[in-house]
Amino acid sequence: MPLQTVIISIGNELLNGETLDTNSYWISSFLQPYGIDIVRKYTIEDTKEALVELLDKEIGQVSTIIMTGGLGPTKDDLTQGILAEYFGSPIEKDEALYEHLKQLFIKRRGLYEEHNLQQAWVPTKARVIKNGLGTAPGTCFEKQKTTVVSLPGVPFEMKAMMKEEVLPLLLTSWEINSFKSVKTLLVAGKGESDIAHLLNDWEAQLSDAFTLAYLPNLGLVRLRLQVVTKTQEESDNLLEKEVETLRKALGNHIVSEDGSDLPTVILSLLSKQNKTLGFVESCTGGLFSDEITNIPGASQSFRGSIIAYDNEIKSNVATANAETIEKYGAVSEESVREMALGGQKVLEVDYCLAVSGILGPGGGSEAKPVGTVWLAIAGPEELVTYQFYFGYDRLENKMMTVNYGLNMLRKMLLKGE
Amino acid sequence: MPLQTVIISIGNELLNGETLDTNSYWISSFLQPYGIDIVRKYTIEDTKEALVELLDKEIGQVSTIIMTGGLGPTKDDLTQGILAEYFGSPIEKDEALYEHLKQLFIKRRGLYEEHNLQQAWVPTKARVIKNGLGTAPGTCFEKQKTTVVSLPGVPFEMKAMMKEEVLPLLLTSWEINSFKSVKTLLVAGKGESDIAHLLNDWEAQLSDAFTLAYLPNLGLVRLRLQVVTKTQEESDNLLEKEVETLRKALGNHIVSEDGSDLPTVILSLLSKQNKTLGFVESCTGGLFSDEITNIPGASQSFRGSIIAYDNEIKSNVATANAETIEKYGAVSEESVREMALGGQKVLEVDYCLAVSGILGPGGGSEAKPVGTVWLAIAGPEELVTYQFYFGYDRLENKMMTVNYGLNMLRKMLLKGE
Repeated sequence: MPLQTVIISIGNELLNGETLDTNSYWISSFLQPYGIDIVRKYTIEDTKEALVELLDKEIGQVSTIIMTGGLGPTKDDLTQGILAEYFGSPIEKDEALYEHLKQLFIKRRGLYEEHNLQQAWVPTKARVIKNGLGTAPGTCFEKQKTTVVSLPGVPFEMKAMMKEEVLPLLLTSWEINSFKSVKTLLVAGKGESDIAHLLNDWEAQLSDAFTLAYLPNLGLVRLRLQVVTKTQEESDNLLEKEVETLRKALGNHIVSEDGSDLPTVILSLLSKQNKTLGFVESCTGGLFSDEITNIPGASQSFRGSIIAYDNEIKSNVATANAETIEKYGAVSEESVREMALGGQKVLEVDYCLAVSGILGPGGGSEAKPVGTVWLAIAGPEELVTYQFYFGYDRLENKMMTVNYGLNMLRKMLLKGE
Repeated sequence: MPLQTVIISIGNELLNGETLDTNSYWISSFLQPYGIDIVRKYTIEDTKEALVELLDKEIGQVSTIIMTGGLGPTKDDLTQGILAEYFGSPIEKDEALYEHLKQLFIKRRGLYEEHNLQQAWVPTKARVIKNGLGTAPGTCFEKQKTTVVSLPGVPFEMKAMMKEEVLPLLLTSWEINSFKSVKTLLVAGKGESDIAHLLNDWEAQLSDAFTLAYLPNLGLVRLRLQVVTKTQEESDNLLEKEVETLRKALGNHIVSEDGSDLPTVILSLLSKQNKTLGFVESCTGGLFSDEITNIPGASQSFRGSIIAYDNEIKSNVATANAETIEKYGAVSEESVREMALGGQKVLEVDYCLAVSGILGPGGGSEAKPVGTVWLAIAGPEELVTYQFYFGYDRLENKMMTVNYGLNMLRKMLLKGE
């Protein structure tokens, strides 16, 4: 049987647009380093018919089926009962699980009631997958050499169970017979079709063992090159040779080669150079700071920011000259320059990025239409300014501003290398 | 044929964990108000075999198939060619499209090259769906009463095309014969199993025309109640009667009934009361401010924030007493109290929420383990403080802190109603 996995996400809320399915995405990312290919994903209703149809189709075809969702304590969650019936298993009380649930409720709330513990009743033919962080256990069945894993849909519970229970379980039963080598280059400052044009001749001469994908996202393009051969060594060598060509072609448009995102790369440059960072954010309203502080250890270089949404905050807190803002408007080269210099002083940082713009939907004018953004970066040696126009929706414009701004900051930091 | 739609998301990047599929989620949300049920979603590789298998299965079964992805200018995108072959259509140059692409490149970059325009070659049997924001056009084929729509995977391009071209096209061909009424209550401050227990008797007496779903997410639960009958009036009346029961049972745990999220509800309360808001954020690093400024018009009530990651920023900029921070530590009731009062003064706001915590993975101690969060809200009449412990990962802890904190702020604002 091929070493293939399918993911089934269960829940009406995933079909009617109430909930974004981040689970199947996370599972794919998590399994990728182990060479596990996700060949298909399904999203289905929480009904017996829909689930049984898929189990009939996929069992015996793939090595693993991973299901998430439909295991909660409420009446709309039917998966556990359907699986028990499908695999012909009675449902009984699991004493260890019962005790675990009891302790969990006592720890979290100081008490428990009997209705909190009903999830201790599980199919006896399944291997129970412990849920350390929540009340819904997972199950694992085997049929026709297919491993069928069922996990709750609550993201942090599912993740912990994948890491601690499911992966170790699966690794013991998988056999590896083809070897993949993958490199993903994060590229900034060049659009998809321009990169494609630049790489056209090179791409044409790649052998069939290679797959190349362009993954554009709001100002960034990830370029994923993959090669599969019979040995790991051969794959690694072939890949490295082609990546070297890409490095020459793309130069410092390449942000990272190891999957690191822009904030991680910037924090690593700051840390190496022993420099500090702060922001004065108007239109992005905290998104620069939020992105930077998503990275563990950000506090080593990031000191803080001023979110200056109101012009008075720009002048009173970030110490930008009120007359400049009055004269040129907050969305101007003059104002962001003063905000960057003011922030550098008030926050006592080496690098301060300041931004002001009109991200929409309202607030535009003929002279400064929606999408106009001014950005300034004050560094130890220089101050640079940029103007952008983004033609998307509010949230996309916000993210574009952050991606473009962080890339400009990265370029300034590279001069210090 | 039933009025059912399936979504097919195409692209290896969606299977290998590189890209989160937000497109199918957005399409579901977008079509929901029109009574369109998404019955299944598929995510498949960008290969002919995978796509043809699904088209064979679904054409003639459902009214609409919406595909996204696989239409870009690069060589990994194969969908256009596969569709042309599947529907037996030649590919020819579309003069209008060619001109549109030329103008798009001239507008965006001042020039074009021939390789930018290759997407003007499209299947002649398809209706071409114009892409106002990008270069990849969509197509629409008809077969056995199934409408097959193919759109590019770039989110903002796909969204604009759905709104401007696809929805009007579909609405003309759909017939409505059952009527749905739906209400989603956003509930905060109560966990899923407690809500379920509280509603147990009520849920048991609901007729089969109703569907109830619990959708928990990091401190919030959305409760979606849906009823389907033969007339819109009957559905609306039945729903309203049951929602009234829910209102009595859940009281002010209900954040909203119209789909509004916490930031929207808070901004609306502030605006009604003519009050202003600011934050002093340490551990959340800007996420409170970012969430609030995601809402258009936030500037009416939100003035700004201080992101005080470093303790010096807490004292020098937010004017919290440095000795207090030194004595009790930044993560303490005493320190967040001073940060909230300091922020209220410096930012000149009516309400200031301050937060300091240890979100992990590092930085914990025995006395203050990872997950410890202190929060203070200074309002015009009172100052309240809260302590939380969150047992999740860094990003989940960050979001939990924001959801809990905003709910506490909402409760304080409700007193002013």
